[in-house]
Amino acid sequence: MSTAVSPLAPTNVPEMPAIAGVKLATAAAGIRYKGRTDVLLAVMDKGTSVAGVFTRSKCPSAPVEWCRAKLKGGQARALVVNSGNANAFTGKTGKQATTLTASIAAKAAGCKPDDVFLASTGVIGEPLDATKFDGVLGTLAQSAAPDGWMAAAKAIMTTDTFPKLATATVKLGKAKVSINGMAKGAGMIAPDMATMLAFVFTDAPIAAGALQSLLKAGVGDSFNAVTIDGDTSTSDTLLAFATGAAAASGAPKITRASDPRLKAFTKAFNAVLANLSELVARDGEGARHLVEIIVEGATSKTSARKIAMSVANSPLVKTAIAGEDANWGRVVMAVGKAGEPADRDKLSISFNGIRVAWRGARDPAYDEAEVSAAMKNPEIQIRIALGLGRGRDRVLTCDLTKEYVAINGDYRS
Amino acid sequence: MSTAVSPLAPTNVPEMPAIAGVKLATAAAGIRYKGRTDVLLAVMDKGTSVAGVFTRSKCPSAPVEWCRAKLKGGQARALVVNSGNANAFTGKTGKQATTLTASIAAKAAGCKPDDVFLASTGVIGEPLDATKFDGVLGTLAQSAAPDGWMAAAKAIMTTDTFPKLATATVKLGKAKVSINGMAKGAGMIAPDMATMLAFVFTDAPIAAGALQSLLKAGVGDSFNAVTIDGDTSTSDTLLAFATGAAAASGAPKITRASDPRLKAFTKAFNAVLANLSELVARDGEGARHLVEIIVEGATSKTSARKIAMSVANSPLVKTAIAGEDANWGRVVMAVGKAGEPADRDKLSISFNGIRVAWRGARDPAYDEAEVSAAMKNPEIQIRIALGLGRGRDRVLTCDLTKEYVAINGDYRS
Repeated sequence: MSTAVSPLAPTNVPEMPAIAGVKLATAAAGIRYKGRTDVLLAVMDKGTSVAGVFTRSKCPSAPVEWCRAKLKGGQARALVVNSGNANAFTGKTGKQATTLTASIAAKAAGCKPDDVFLASTGVIGEPLDATKFDGVLGTLAQSAAPDGWMAAAKAIMTTDTFPKLATATVKLGKAKVSINGMAKGAGMIAPDMATMLAFVFTDAPIAAGALQSLLKAGVGDSFNAVTIDGDTSTSDTLLAFATGAAAASGAPKITRASDPRLKAFTKAFNAVLANLSELVARDGEGARHLVEIIVEGATSKTSARKIAMSVANSPLVKTAIAGEDANWGRVVMAVGKAGEPADRDKLSISFNGIRVAWRGARDPAYDEAEVSAAMKNPEIQIRIALGLGRGRDRVLTCDLTKEYVAINGDYRS
Repeated sequence: MSTAVSPLAPTNVPEMPAIAGVKLATAAAGIRYKGRTDVLLAVMDKGTSVAGVFTRSKCPSAPVEWCRAKLKGGQARALVVNSGNANAFTGKTGKQATTLTASIAAKAAGCKPDDVFLASTGVIGEPLDATKFDGVLGTLAQSAAPDGWMAAAKAIMTTDTFPKLATATVKLGKAKVSINGMAKGAGMIAPDMATMLAFVFTDAPIAAGALQSLLKAGVGDSFNAVTIDGDTSTSDTLLAFATGAAAASGAPKITRASDPRLKAFTKAFNAVLANLSELVARDGEGARHLVEIIVEGATSKTSARKIAMSVANSPLVKTAIAGEDANWGRVVMAVGKAGEPADRDKLSISFNGIRVAWRGARDPAYDEAEVSAAMKNPEIQIRIALGLGRGRDRVLTCDLTKEYVAINGDYRS
C-alpha cells in the first residue's frame, strides 16, 4: 500500500447520511494485510433489489461469476467484500471459496446464500481461505450499523491512497431519498493487479430490472469513461442496491427506468457514479495530473469515445503530461492511431483552453510560455475538435509517471 | 538523443556487402541536430522497382502521403531520408516541402521527381525547411558510393542508441543476390514521437508488384509483430528497392511473388525484416529486457496475435518484467482483456520455459526462487498456451521502465 496520499485527492470528504435498510460493519480478518481492516459486511433489509455490471474480461474472478449468476434473482440481503486476495485464477477452489463465504454470510445475515453478493480484490492466483470469514461475519452482522461509511470505504482499499465516497440526496415523488456510494481502485495490489470495485446503495424503491437499466446506462459516461492504464481487471465489479425503505415515507415504487418520476433520481444517481469514477482517476497509481479528454466534432459519440480512449491510453501522451509538456504532436498521433474518421487538416487541439493546433498545423498564435505555465496545473483538459460532425465524448485519465513504474515494477527488485 | 547504448544492443555489427545499383551518401544539413549527419541520399540505377508499406495512422505525415502516391509508378531512382524533423502535421507547407525536396533530389540524381521517395523523422508540427537540401543533395549525388551502410544507418537515427543493419545473401536462380536493410526506431524524437523507418535494398530483379506482395506478406510477422508502447507514429515507413542489377549475372526476372524460384529469396528477405524489427525492439526506449510473447492453442492466428499484442502492450505486464517479476496474474489479466476466446481453466503460462500457471491456477510445481532467477535474464519469453485450437503467433516487445518515462516526460520539466 502507498503511504503518501495522491496530490489529486479531494480536500473535502462528504458527510454520508444513513441509508434506511442498510447496515455496515468492518473487521480485520487477516486475509493478507496486518493491522488494518480487510472485510466489509453490508446487510440489507428484506425487499432490497440489486443490479450489477462487471469486468468484460474473458478470465473473470470467482466472485464475479458468483454475482453474475445470483443477479438473476434480483434480490440482495448481504454484501461481503474482502481486500488482500482477489480469488481470481484460483480454479475450483476459488468457486468453493465463494460458496463457503456466501453460506457463512447467509447464516450471519439470516438469508439464503443466493441473496449474498461477493467481491474480492487483491493478489490473484492465491487460494482464498474462506474459513477466515467464519465467526467474523457473524460478529459483523451483530454489530452492523447505519453509519460507518468511511470505515467501509477504508476496508476495501488496496493500493488506494484515500477512501472514495460520494453521496446525493434527491426527491423521488414527494419523498426524500439518498444515494450513497463507495469505490476502490484503480490501484495495484502488490504483487498483482488493478481492480475497481464500487457499491452504491439507495433507499429508493426501485425494482431490480429498472435498477439494472439505470446502472447500465449510468456506467457508460462514468466508470467506463475512466482509464488509468488501459488494463482491465479480472474482478471489476459495480453493484447497486435499492432497499426500498423510502416507500414508507411515500416514495413511489419504480418498475421502469424510463419512468418520468425517476428523472431527478437518475441525474443524482449518475452524479454519484461520476463522482466515484473521478475519484478513481484522481487516485491513479503515481498520478500527478488529472487529465480530462474531450473529443468533439467526431462522426458519432462512439467514434469520439474511441478517439478519446486512444489519447487517454497513449503512453506517449501520458508521459508528456507527466513532463508538463503540451505535446500536441502526440495527441495527433493518438488521434491518428484510433482508426476512426479524422481529417488532419480540420483537426484542432487545446490544452486547458489554449489552442495549440488549428486545422492541421501549429496554431500561429501559440505562445509556448503561456502553455507551459498552464501545464503546471494539476488538472489538465485536452480538447480535440475534429470538425467532422456532432459526436462528442469525454474521458478521464491521469498521467504516467515514474512512480507508476515504481509501484508496479519495483517491489520485487 | 540518448548517450547510453541499450543493454540489449547486438554485440556484432554485420558486414554489409555492396548492392549493385545502389549508392549512398550522408551529410549534416542542419535540420535540427548539431554535429551529426541528418540526411541520407540513396541513388538507384534505372530500372529499380519499389514497394512500400506505411503507418495506418489517419493523420499521416506529408512524406508518407508523397510515397503512397508515387508508389503507383513502381519505379524509384532516389531515396531522401532526413532526421530531426518529421514534416508531420505541417499542413500545406508540409506538402510543399515534399515537392521541393523531391525536385531538388530529382535534379541531383538526374531523374523525375516522381521517382524520388521521401521519409522524415523527428519533431512534428514544425515546418521542414526543404531549401536546406538545396546544394546538399547535389553534392551527395556526386559523392554517393556503394559502401557507407553504417553511415547511412547512423544518419537516420533519432533517439536510437545504436544503428540498425541487417543483410542476407542468397541464390536466385544460379546468381547470388544480396539484401541489405537498415532501420531506425522505435525511439522518441524529443520533443515528439516514435517513428519507425526501414529501407531494404536488393540487386534481385523483382518487379514492383511482386516486391509489394513480398513486402506486405513479410511485414506481418516482423515489423507488425513488434510493439514498444502501442503508439503508432504518423510517419512509419518501410520501403523496399530492387535494382535488378543481378540480372546481368543471370538472376531470373521475377514478376510474381508466388514464383517458386523466389522461395529462398523470400526466406532471406523475411529474415532481414525480422532481424531489423528485432533490433527495433532491442532499442525500445528505456528497455532493459527484450520480451518475446508466444501464444499457442488459440482459435486462430489472428486471435493469437490479438492476445499477444494485448499482453505486449499491457503496462502492468511490462512494468512487472522491468521489476523482474514473473507476475503471471497480469498475463492472465491481459489475456482476459483481449476479448478473444480464452478459457480460464485451460490456460497455462510459462516464463523462460518455467511453467507458473497451469489449467487456470498456479502450477503446483512452481518454484518462486527458480522463476525469480530466470527473470534476471535480459531476454524473457512468455509462453501462453490457451488449449483451444491450433492458432499460434509471436510478438516482440520490451519492458516499461522508469527510463521510458524519463525519456518521454522529463525533457521539459
